[in-house]
Amino acid sequence: MPEDPYGIRPGELAVSPPERFDAELYFIGRIRTPWKTRDECPKNARESEAVCTIEVDPRWAQALTGIETCTHLLVLYWMDRARRDLVLQAPRHYGAPRGTFALRSPVRPNPIAASVVRLVKVDGTSLSVVGLDCLDGTPLLDLKPYFASTDAVPDAVVGWHAER
Amino acid sequence: MPEDPYGIRPGELAVSPPERFDAELYFIGRIRTPWKTRDECPKNARESEAVCTIEVDPRWAQALTGIETCTHLLVLYWMDRARRDLVLQAPRHYGAPRGTFALRSPVRPNPIAASVVRLVKVDGTSLSVVGLDCLDGTPLLDLKPYFASTDAVPDAVVGWHAER
Repeated sequence: MPEDPYGIRPGELAVSPPERFDAELYFIGRIRTPWKTRDECPKNARESEAVCTIEVDPRWAQALTGIETCTHLLVLYWMDRARRDLVLQAPRHYGAPRGTFALRSPVRPNPIAASVVRLVKVDGTSLSVVGLDCLDGTPLLDLKPYFASTDAVPDAVVGWHAER
Repeated sequence: MPEDPYGIRPGELAVSPPERFDAELYFIGRIRTPWKTRDECPKNARESEAVCTIEVDPRWAQALTGIETCTHLLVLYWMDRARRDLVLQAPRHYGAPRGTFALRSPVRPNPIAASVVRLVKVDGTSLSVVGLDCLDGTPLLDLKPYFASTDAVPDAVVGWHAER
């Protein structure tokens, strides 16, 4: 497991990881973004209108059939630089420590990110999208159609964040 | 890989899987639902107001700190009964074959489901939620706070579905 370059901050807590893994993933493509280091990445995907490119492995080309009819996608990707053993985290911009499952930090037992993107263009196995904030070269795990009927909850509230 | 009991239908297409896996997952808990077979599961999570229980492994208990302030969560779980090699699928209720990445079917290279749930209650490491449609015993991968600002896109359209 790669070491987190930022280490543990005051108030953070690590646990010992489970003895074994339970399931395995394929990387099905790569995400190309303008950001080569963590410090360059936008803090929030809504901060950037950058068009990023999702390059799907040709093996899965036919799995894209019909995706061009979607205005938005849910993209799952693998945050392969993050440590996986923290249960309490104190992100620099939030102050007080919070539980990993109350945060969208890349540091989590299974570092799978889920981002909603706007689909701009499909060109073969390359998808141009807006709404990502990850490092260039990030491994792709899945693409799903975004259904407003089940995925959109405009009045949802994250209390600790709203009260800051 | 478990065999899909329904097999391949006309118009469906399988590819040979990659030679190796690229990353590994921990199961961090289990989801308890009223549904013991696939046929019992609701076709769509919005069809059911059933309260389901997410049981988080005690190892990760402190990672739940602050989660009770969230009205909604994004739940990632592992659909461990699904085959992973189909690129075109013809779900019974949709007719024409479509690409795996244009569908929310459990059959996909990485069978990770993403569901938005309403958080009803937190009792230690048990979370009561509404909005799941999975089998009882499904392995849990991740819990994330749902941020309306980035996760809710009420006007998103899945064209092929809207035109049915």
